[in-house]
Amino acid sequence: MNALESAISKIDWKKMNGLVPVIVQDVKTNNILMQAYVNQEALKLTIETGKCHYFSRSRKSIWQKGETSGNIQYIKEIYVDCDGDCILYRVVQKGVACHTGEYSCFFEKIYGD
Amino acid sequence: MNALESAISKIDWKKMNGLVPVIVQDVKTNNILMQAYVNQEALKLTIETGKCHYFSRSRKSIWQKGETSGNIQYIKEIYVDCDGDCILYRVVQKGVACHTGEYSCFFEKIYGD
Repeated sequence: MNALESAISKIDWKKMNGLVPVIVQDVKTNNILMQAYVNQEALKLTIETGKCHYFSRSRKSIWQKGETSGNIQYIKEIYVDCDGDCILYRVVQKGVACHTGEYSCFFEKIYGD
Repeated sequence: MNALESAISKIDWKKMNGLVPVIVQDVKTNNILMQAYVNQEALKLTIETGKCHYFSRSRKSIWQKGETSGNIQYIKEIYVDCDGDCILYRVVQKGVACHTGEYSCFFEKIYGD
């Protein structure tokens, strides 16, 4: 089993019909940049190219972050959680992560001081 | 509209039939502790009690983190992402977050140096 097969085998692909949520975190600051989904092909492309790929639930297709905007995410580390149903991409973000121009998609506070 | 109603109104509850994924982050270190799901009632209980509540997809019921283990999560801030379909809990973790005894559920690296 190579590194890719090993990674894929540790993820529970059944709970969400072939998708798993992925948390995207800045490897330098630990800030959370965005949350998205991957299927096996998107994970494979991420590992093979070094650039983060995701699966769009609305368009039902794979997309590479920054393919049009230039705001590429370079993958550095991937973690899986204890029950295998969520993964974590730790990335170097070029430019900003959010389509609004904010650095992170989580810019709106809805509770707290 | 009070603070709770305002928070609930900013979240897109339709995409996953009344649930949204929640990323749980340590407010002091920015480390990611776990990922889970909430419905409106779990979010309401979190804000009202100050202790993080979630919705279990397998048991189809609400649970309070640490209710049996004592590993309570105290909510400090909640953020919503730009398209309203994911939220972020920033918490103070008592004890550890993972049932395995690890501090974070994301302790297994599957890619990277």
